[in-house]
Amino acid sequence: MTTVTADPTVPIIHITRDFLATPEQVFRAHTDPELFARWVGPDTTRTRIDHWDARSGGSWRYVSVTDDGVEFAVRGCFHDVRRPDRIVQTFTFEREPDGVALQTTWFEDLGNGRTRLRTQSLVDSFEGRDGMLKTGMRIGLDNGYAKLDRILINDNR
Amino acid sequence: MTTVTADPTVPIIHITRDFLATPEQVFRAHTDPELFARWVGPDTTRTRIDHWDARSGGSWRYVSVTDDGVEFAVRGCFHDVRRPDRIVQTFTFEREPDGVALQTTWFEDLGNGRTRLRTQSLVDSFEGRDGMLKTGMRIGLDNGYAKLDRILINDNR
Repeated sequence: MTTVTADPTVPIIHITRDFLATPEQVFRAHTDPELFARWVGPDTTRTRIDHWDARSGGSWRYVSVTDDGVEFAVRGCFHDVRRPDRIVQTFTFEREPDGVALQTTWFEDLGNGRTRLRTQSLVDSFEGRDGMLKTGMRIGLDNGYAKLDRILINDNR
Repeated sequence: MTTVTADPTVPIIHITRDFLATPEQVFRAHTDPELFARWVGPDTTRTRIDHWDARSGGSWRYVSVTDDGVEFAVRGCFHDVRRPDRIVQTFTFEREPDGVALQTTWFEDLGNGRTRLRTQSLVDSFEGRDGMLKTGMRIGLDNGYAKLDRILINDNR
């Protein structure tokens, strides 16, 4: 189950999700562009990676394409890629170029081939944070992580 | 005069400083590595640029060297470099690698060859923000901007 919570004291969204896979496997699903494109986002979109350099100081951009052909692009830079523990990156929807989130993802080893994925998205205002929560991010997360579950289970067969 | 304030509602430090120069000149002093190294930081340190790619998606790293030879390094990535209006970048002291600030700098045209520089540094906790305020950042800002004043005045002669 994916948990999405709004922090009460700072403009952060916290996301938590457990996977039946090792931190190394879940980390790779966030850094390998072909693998990432297979699971990220809602079931109604496809992902086209435009640019991807998952190293500290690298950058990334991808385009989501809906079933009816609408495209929207997101981009950012990788501040810190620390295998297999943590990724820190920036995130902007290109149609709202002034908005920037600082996103940190932790890959926590629960033992027995299980990993807890924790993500926090930090922005500079509560209004901005609450706006992000209303964009339908929930369906994208639920669909995306379910796709990732299936990929990881096939990996482990 | 440099104004440094702690935001009451979000973990941000706001910094404001006016310059007798155009936005283009002040912007260039933040993106040209040789020029940047001449003014940034307190009078008691020198700056050695290690890496510098001031483009959206680029990254940077520099080392400050004190008069008695102590070195400390800082690094980050450039999320958005929008000449001459805005720079968004990440910032980490390498001796505290888990701490990351998202720093936005605006270059506001006041007319008559004057520019208001506004910077906000956003972190993920008030404790972290208040710790930053205690690191002696004030002397570095005051010294640095005074050096930048002199560089810009010489430019305009």
